[in-house]
Amino acid sequence: MQFKITKEFIEILNSKIEEKDNQWILENVFELHHADIADVLDELSTENAKYVYYLGGDEVQGDILMDLQEENRESLIDTLSTKEIADQIENLDSDDAADILGEFSEDKIQEVISQMDDDEAAEDIVDLLNYDEDTAGGLMQKEFLVVQLNWPVNKAIMQLRKQAEDVERVMNIFVVDEGEHLLGVLSLKRLLIANSSTKIAELYNSKNIISVKTSDSSEQVSNVMEKYDLVSVPVVDYQNKLVGRITIDDVVDYLKEEADKDFQLATGISDPLKSDAGIWKISKARLPWLIIGLAGGILGAQVISGFEVSIFEHPELAFFIPLITAMGGNVGVQSSAIVVQSLARGDQNMGGILGKIWKETLVGMLNGILLSLIILGIGTAFGGFDIGLVVSTSLFTVIVVAAIFGTFIPLLLNKYKIDPALATGPFITTLNDVVGLFIYFSIGLFIFSLLK
Amino acid sequence: MQFKITKEFIEILNSKIEEKDNQWILENVFELHHADIADVLDELSTENAKYVYYLGGDEVQGDILMDLQEENRESLIDTLSTKEIADQIENLDSDDAADILGEFSEDKIQEVISQMDDDEAAEDIVDLLNYDEDTAGGLMQKEFLVVQLNWPVNKAIMQLRKQAEDVERVMNIFVVDEGEHLLGVLSLKRLLIANSSTKIAELYNSKNIISVKTSDSSEQVSNVMEKYDLVSVPVVDYQNKLVGRITIDDVVDYLKEEADKDFQLATGISDPLKSDAGIWKISKARLPWLIIGLAGGILGAQVISGFEVSIFEHPELAFFIPLITAMGGNVGVQSSAIVVQSLARGDQNMGGILGKIWKETLVGMLNGILLSLIILGIGTAFGGFDIGLVVSTSLFTVIVVAAIFGTFIPLLLNKYKIDPALATGPFITTLNDVVGLFIYFSIGLFIFSLLK
Repeated sequence: MQFKITKEFIEILNSKIEEKDNQWILENVFELHHADIADVLDELSTENAKYVYYLGGDEVQGDILMDLQEENRESLIDTLSTKEIADQIENLDSDDAADILGEFSEDKIQEVISQMDDDEAAEDIVDLLNYDEDTAGGLMQKEFLVVQLNWPVNKAIMQLRKQAEDVERVMNIFVVDEGEHLLGVLSLKRLLIANSSTKIAELYNSKNIISVKTSDSSEQVSNVMEKYDLVSVPVVDYQNKLVGRITIDDVVDYLKEEADKDFQLATGISDPLKSDAGIWKISKARLPWLIIGLAGGILGAQVISGFEVSIFEHPELAFFIPLITAMGGNVGVQSSAIVVQSLARGDQNMGGILGKIWKETLVGMLNGILLSLIILGIGTAFGGFDIGLVVSTSLFTVIVVAAIFGTFIPLLLNKYKIDPALATGPFITTLNDVVGLFIYFSIGLFIFSLLK
Repeated sequence: MQFKITKEFIEILNSKIEEKDNQWILENVFELHHADIADVLDELSTENAKYVYYLGGDEVQGDILMDLQEENRESLIDTLSTKEIADQIENLDSDDAADILGEFSEDKIQEVISQMDDDEAAEDIVDLLNYDEDTAGGLMQKEFLVVQLNWPVNKAIMQLRKQAEDVERVMNIFVVDEGEHLLGVLSLKRLLIANSSTKIAELYNSKNIISVKTSDSSEQVSNVMEKYDLVSVPVVDYQNKLVGRITIDDVVDYLKEEADKDFQLATGISDPLKSDAGIWKISKARLPWLIIGLAGGILGAQVISGFEVSIFEHPELAFFIPLITAMGGNVGVQSSAIVVQSLARGDQNMGGILGKIWKETLVGMLNGILLSLIILGIGTAFGGFDIGLVVSTSLFTVIVVAAIFGTFIPLLLNKYKIDPALATGPFITTLNDVVGLFIYFSIGLFIFSLLK
């Protein structure tokens, strides 16, 4: 039932564009859902995408714009006059319109706003531009359904009909007093069932009303909507006045972005890229982490070179270098991942930071003891009891240290408002490599001198 | 406005339970949202949680059950009779009820079903139990609003009032023909605006109707709902008959779980755990990956020991072991992360597998050349031109090989229906370590023998 984009379709479309067969394009492209039209345009050359785009009306143009990939959106917008932009964003929800305008310069924003016909829509957008992108104010839209407590059902329905023209998705009806303070929610279900003379006050639900403040972070909003299974949540200002609503689809987009970002940080890709990006771009996005890794490797080389004499006397020491670095890296990443996830989930920090570090230390010791015993046997078989003892003792130490680092660093980053997920990636691996090598060779030097 | 759980509240509650002050509990706990009640119960001892739980009515009990943490839910359910379970799940949405029953044995399911008073609800649940958990059929619920094409608005509203009693969240009204085939969607907005004698056929939207099939995977459902910004999607069978709907909150839960799972695989934690799990449990969850890492380290030791003579002659070779393994690991994880993300996003595989591997090879070569040049200079400064040449040549080779492995392995896993995210974690790092060491020492042996 859904449209599936194919190479053949794109080829035919390209030839129709060349023939300027606008009739065909209108019938075969603009009959699609705007999300599919955007997908199609993303597959065309910039020139051809523009050609098709200009055949659409204001209304579908705005929707397509929102669904395009970022770079294609930007190159399309560059070709539009401020008047065209004004006409197209007028048909969008206020939050989407503000998102598009938010990327412009102050001057261009003012120019577009002044060209909008609908003053109320313009005012809404200007208002939304005041909020930080990463807050409830930045996520919310100004279109919502609202009724007053003292209205009867028939007046409410009449008012809702007017409001509904602007609201793309009817989910909840908010109930306010005369001062616009949020009092509760009215379900459409109850409105469907009620008699026309009943007062809203008798129908609405004022118990456990969940709302968010304009200054709440996107993360808080998403946690609240997820916890209470909400499809839309009212946004209030500091005086509890209703100023907007956030719908779940915006939160879904936010969740997807966050998950991608965490995954990218954990795997060392600094810049989100589509898999069809060019080779130069991909290379550039990956280089920063690789250079950090390289610097770590050079530091590691320096550490080892400081123990050159030990290696000369005991070449077996070199055999276990990868084991020590790999284990330190793995344990560090595991500990940090746990902390990062629990921070993202907004878990209450009942135990406190010291408690967490202590717990990870215990886990590290437990795993460290087990793995060290295994390696004591294997190491002894490999190169004698002395090397077995060195490897197992340092493995234990490295695991415990890595567990502590892995816990401490994301907590520290979080305290200073840096994304703690940064600590799950190559950063912590590199740090643990260098520290682990130092521990390994120091313990080796010490034990060999004891056994001599 | 939201309830915040505090240590003090839990302490007071525990003392009120001891005093059997049911009045206080009813007023202070059961006035909360059921999601908050579940959070409170999760903080109590099993005994005390049961005590509070039994004070609630059937309706809230079912909701609380759904929101409890899994282990607490299981231990509570174990204390309930089949009749009590039947009464409590009767008030849940059919999909939630089926999720709870799905964890029982065949016999227990039959027993609970036979004790349910509402035959229609029982039938719905039995029907849902037939579907695979990971498909649209497993996600959908049987409660939805539906009208027939030839009904007038007043008949539709009458019917919807009846249906609405069972439907927790009114989002869309589906339109079917007399044979229950899905034809389109009717927005509540249009129903609010319409005259009572208008036929549904004149009001509904039949263009670009997005639906999913019962057999579609959860991943497909989530991609469709995200792409088209849907808050609910109709589910049809192979004959296009409407059989259920999926609401966005279920997809949000699914997205969260998937993101957590991918993150955990990438960071080497095999079992999702809350951060307040016990130390033994945490240790056990992390051991599998650590043991794989250990095995890799031992293999690595074996590889290096095969080149013991080289190390004896050129101890500087040992200095750069961590650099080679770290870079191979980082590049491999980066490449695999890109592939895993694009697979999860359902990107169309336009280039084909070979094309992807070729592209990653090129990216690897590009980054490899740059990083090798840097290390050629540094290595030469460290230990002379010969060691610089060895390290830079092998770094280049290792980066290219790691890029190819990192692309190939998730694609291979995906082909055999294994979660490709498995390849972003310690698995690929370990593999790259061993292969990288072999490349490094082989190239070292070769170049040193050339320069001799």
